[in-house]
Amino acid sequence: MTKRRGDLDLDAAGRQMHGLMTELYPLCRSITGQGVRETLARIAKHVDLQVHEVPTGTPVLDWTVPREWNIRGASVRDPSGRTVVDFADSNLHVVGYSTPVRASMALAELREHLFTLPERPDWIPYRTAYWAETWGFCMRHRDVEALEDGDYEVVIDSTLEDGSLTLGEYLHAGTTTDEVLIHCHTCHPSLANDNLSGIAIATYLASRLRGRETRLSYRFLFLPGTIGAITWLARNEDVLGRIRHGLVVCCVGDPGPFTYKRSRRGDATVDRAAAYVLGRRGVEHRILDFTPWGYDERQYCSPGFDLPVGSLTRSPNNAYPEYHTSADDLGFVTPEALAESLDVYLDLLDVLEHDLAYRNLSPKGEPQLGRRGLYPSIGGDRAGDRQLALLWVLNQSDGDHTLLDIAERSGLPFDELRWAAGQLLEHGLLAPA
Amino acid sequence: MTKRRGDLDLDAAGRQMHGLMTELYPLCRSITGQGVRETLARIAKHVDLQVHEVPTGTPVLDWTVPREWNIRGASVRDPSGRTVVDFADSNLHVVGYSTPVRASMALAELREHLFTLPERPDWIPYRTAYWAETWGFCMRHRDVEALEDGDYEVVIDSTLEDGSLTLGEYLHAGTTTDEVLIHCHTCHPSLANDNLSGIAIATYLASRLRGRETRLSYRFLFLPGTIGAITWLARNEDVLGRIRHGLVVCCVGDPGPFTYKRSRRGDATVDRAAAYVLGRRGVEHRILDFTPWGYDERQYCSPGFDLPVGSLTRSPNNAYPEYHTSADDLGFVTPEALAESLDVYLDLLDVLEHDLAYRNLSPKGEPQLGRRGLYPSIGGDRAGDRQLALLWVLNQSDGDHTLLDIAERSGLPFDELRWAAGQLLEHGLLAPA
Amino acid sequence: MTKRRGDLDLDAAGRQMHGLMTELYPLCRSITGQGVRETLARIAKHVDLQVHEVPTGTPVLDWTVPREWNIRGASVRDPSGRTVVDFADSNLHVVGYSTPVRASMALAELREHLFTLPERPDWIPYRTAYWAETWGFCMRHRDVEALEDGDYEVVIDSTLEDGSLTLGEYLHAGTTTDEVLIHCHTCHPSLANDNLSGIAIATYLASRLRGRETRLSYRFLFLPGTIGAITWLARNEDVLGRIRHGLVVCCVGDPGPFTYKRSRRGDATVDRAAAYVLGRRGVEHRILDFTPWGYDERQYCSPGFDLPVGSLTRSPNNAYPEYHTSADDLGFVTPEALAESLDVYLDLLDVLEHDLAYRNLSPKGEPQLGRRGLYPSIGGDRAGDRQLALLWVLNQSDGDHTLLDIAERSGLPFDELRWAAGQLLEHGLLAPA
Repeated sequence: MTKRRGDLDLDAAGRQMHGLMTELYPLCRSITGQGVRETLARIAKHVDLQVHEVPTGTPVLDWTVPREWNIRGASVRDPSGRTVVDFADSNLHVVGYSTPVRASMALAELREHLFTLPERPDWIPYRTAYWAETWGFCMRHRDVEALEDGDYEVVIDSTLEDGSLTLGEYLHAGTTTDEVLIHCHTCHPSLANDNLSGIAIATYLASRLRGRETRLSYRFLFLPGTIGAITWLARNEDVLGRIRHGLVVCCVGDPGPFTYKRSRRGDATVDRAAAYVLGRRGVEHRILDFTPWGYDERQYCSPGFDLPVGSLTRSPNNAYPEYHTSADDLGFVTPEALAESLDVYLDLLDVLEHDLAYRNLSPKGEPQLGRRGLYPSIGGDRAGDRQLALLWVLNQSDGDHTLLDIAERSGLPFDELRWAAGQLLEHGLLAPA
Repeated sequence: MTKRRGDLDLDAAGRQMHGLMTELYPLCRSITGQGVRETLARIAKHVDLQVHEVPTGTPVLDWTVPREWNIRGASVRDPSGRTVVDFADSNLHVVGYSTPVRASMALAELREHLFTLPERPDWIPYRTAYWAETWGFCMRHRDVEALEDGDYEVVIDSTLEDGSLTLGEYLHAGTTTDEVLIHCHTCHPSLANDNLSGIAIATYLASRLRGRETRLSYRFLFLPGTIGAITWLARNEDVLGRIRHGLVVCCVGDPGPFTYKRSRRGDATVDRAAAYVLGRRGVEHRILDFTPWGYDERQYCSPGFDLPVGSLTRSPNNAYPEYHTSADDLGFVTPEALAESLDVYLDLLDVLEHDLAYRNLSPKGEPQLGRRGLYPSIGGDRAGDRQLALLWVLNQSDGDHTLLDIAERSGLPFDELRWAAGQLLEHGLLAPA
Repeated sequence: MTKRRGDLDLDAAGRQMHGLMTELYPLCRSITGQGVRETLARIAKHVDLQVHEVPTGTPVLDWTVPREWNIRGASVRDPSGRTVVDFADSNLHVVGYSTPVRASMALAELREHLFTLPERPDWIPYRTAYWAETWGFCMRHRDVEALEDGDYEVVIDSTLEDGSLTLGEYLHAGTTTDEVLIHCHTCHPSLANDNLSGIAIATYLASRLRGRETRLSYRFLFLPGTIGAITWLARNEDVLGRIRHGLVVCCVGDPGPFTYKRSRRGDATVDRAAAYVLGRRGVEHRILDFTPWGYDERQYCSPGFDLPVGSLTRSPNNAYPEYHTSADDLGFVTPEALAESLDVYLDLLDVLEHDLAYRNLSPKGEPQLGRRGLYPSIGGDRAGDRQLALLWVLNQSDGDHTLLDIAERSGLPFDELRWAAGQLLEHGLLAPA
């Protein structure tokens, strides 16, 4: 049986998202370069994306936009001429931002440029050197162990030249300028969960908004990690005051339990809404306090901005062995996990979209619901959820409590409270606060 | 051995309260009518009750005082002429506020007016239809199952006419106008725990105050559920500012563990005092958060009033199978349970009455208690409770902390702290805050 | 292997402190008299102590400085002339402040002046009668049981005469006048844990500060219990505003788990620092709420002063059977326990000394640590503690959070955060708040 969510076929959505990931997987992304541009071009088939190019050398906050990095190929040949590592096999083999190299060297010297995972000898690690003039290869530990003494031929056919940093952005305008920020990072090469999964969910959420009328505006950012967020923040300080809620989307394709990491504030609406939504689903999940580590919530939550941005993942960074290795591949993520993540994101955005406060217009005693057809005519029996929802909304609507507040206090489903608020508005018993 | 509380024989009090319940049990109460009037007349033998009659049609907040309902009898005869249900056997048999009926009808039509409890086939449910023009019978499920096809003769000899709503009220004036509100509902017919037990406790508490000097004023309300509270609130808005603490008394005669339901505020003094008193007794009990369901705390705690009114029951509404059925009878409630409930209510009122803040007049360092005879002359041994009570009251009496605050923080019995405050007042070391 | 703490040999320090206790143990201390004077004279060999003599009759807060008590000897001889109790065997044998006695009396009369511990028949209790004109002997219960009828010769060769109360004080001046108060009581006779252990730790801490530059000033008080603290407070009200943190040091020589008793405020920095330090050590410990009982925290935390003074002990008052008995002797305390207590006190004082708030000078986004050499050049791997410490200090340094706040929130060691703050200050990324 297909899993549905109203008009949405979740199974089909899961397959679509996995399809997009499969299409994007081979591209060699980094914080700049053709791989990012090509990635954004493919996302733009689904979303009306604005692409910004920010030139090398542009000062952004405490940083400077770096030179653009591109790579055509890279390999190492052993003394017998056999190719022992080749970029063509996996773009993880080359340390990101490796400088061009064409040299012959002894194994001992080469070793200083090799990165492996001794405890996972068959996996290739993911390493970068964005801000250092260096180069390196990431290899299976088993392969490095087998290398013999002698001279090796090393080639990295890369360029590091003035160019630009590429940012993708999409704004769905709501009836208000209050914004939800949805951020995903686009800088990782062939790693599936981190973060093609986040790109896939963000793309799906953005495309689904097309043609829908919403109260909130939704801003989607497809940015390289750290420098991308820094650059976007530097260029958009005037926008920041509109951001009411924000989410960093990543690691949402693996079948692990959900993990929500709170914003620096710790009690932002998005923090409470995420805890409520995960709690109501009754699935295993974890709520973590903010730490200034992880993904770009670090930048949004720096003390000079302190935006209400949390991060909803499944297994988060460093919490699964495949993280930042070649084992984070297309087999590690599943359409089912993507579909469930989408469902949770939609639940969460539903709460944010409809979390309003109301004012009871008949606040002294209960209004007589019976004569308005909102109460059963026979009394004495146990109250149903809808009756309780009406009473809770009336009781708490003093202008200070939003529907999420009432949901938390009452333990009732958010949707029932939203229905009750709608009924009471219609009968003139409630007004927006 | 009889259970005593100072000068009070609790066992005898329990028997007296059960006696009053036995006297009131047969009367057919509803939200209006002779049954309520007769009930208040019998309470008035113990308490100097003021009775208010509010005419049908009077607007009260969002409601209107309904027509008065009275009933002389009701029955259903089966096709063979046998009486299958008779109001004379139990006033629960007729749905409260049933319109007059005199008709013959097929079983199928009759069935739409029959209410039963399939899972409790020998019990009669309690149902009402105050605000709908309808009628019905409540029956044992087993009896309805045995009905055979054919025409039934249905008679409900009731009247629904302009009249009045009857409210009972008693105010014990204290030395201050700060008030404790004690509310019980008087609208339920032959149901013992809900709420003849509450009526009995409230009557006992009110009668016991006669001739006693108290600091607080105590207002007792004997009102029909919902419409009674709505009506009283509508007519007494000028009084509400004096209400410092309030309690809805009901379901206090069964032997279940005590349950305290907090006011909407959640941290009112009465909420903390109830938790403290139940905690100190060391008996099984539950403290529940406010919900806008249950009894008339819903009205007092509506957002336009938001009074500090909680509810102290034993098994609360919907929490015991006998609730709102014929099994909530005089055998379900016991004199022992009533006596214990009285004892807890007296503990709680004691705390409220004496919960004052003081100011230490020698606040720098400890005053020398020894030279005032308040400290043992030999030192080095462990301190006793009275010594600790003196030290706690001195330490915390900065004008902000009441004796309840100190009791909560110290874990000492409230009575010891009250004793200590008395001693320190006498020795000029303390003053009212 | 010797336990070290930086340049400090903890084992040697433990032995030194036990040596000082052994030296002070035989002296007969009380709240006044030669025993206290002699004790302070020996402490003054290690610490540049100021000694204050406050004359008998001086009014101090609600009290008056009492007459000075001294004792040369005391004994009881039984009808056969045998000495059954002798002050020369233990200064605990005489109730502190016993009036002079030279009398013959029957056993029955004598018994009213004898104190024993029936449940510990071989231990002598510790009792005092500072504020009553009485006398008494403290004896092994077993010995009292063996007394035979007849007349007893009782001699207490004591004096109660005008003299003075003796206070010891040492102030280590820091670069600021913000003070840490370290208090220990000096009035107990031959009792080791209570409180020669506190005297030994305080003496060690004070002597170790010699020649060190500190931010905070450290005030050490060596005072008789209650009347000493009352007298010091009465004479030093102008100093109290400088006290930022305070600790009552006692019962720190037994091997029991650490116990921290919070100040009356409950959330003073010293309360949080003590909980943090004990928590980080990963040893069994207890954190207790303030009670106005115990030691002189009672006086500092009286409502007229309400100073942030807690008490860090091992087994606290009344919590071990040896408390206030002859079993609290030099064998009950160990050099190892003293050394560990010293280590904990030094940890705690380190936190207080360095607990400052800073302001991130690059608060928008993360500053680029890499180009300042504060970040590894190769990315993608797990962050180390030092990297996290830098990020935490940057993220939380908005001027409101101190390093202790950050330590509590991050779970990182205080020392790492202090290191990180130092690095960031040096690179101009941080300023004092």
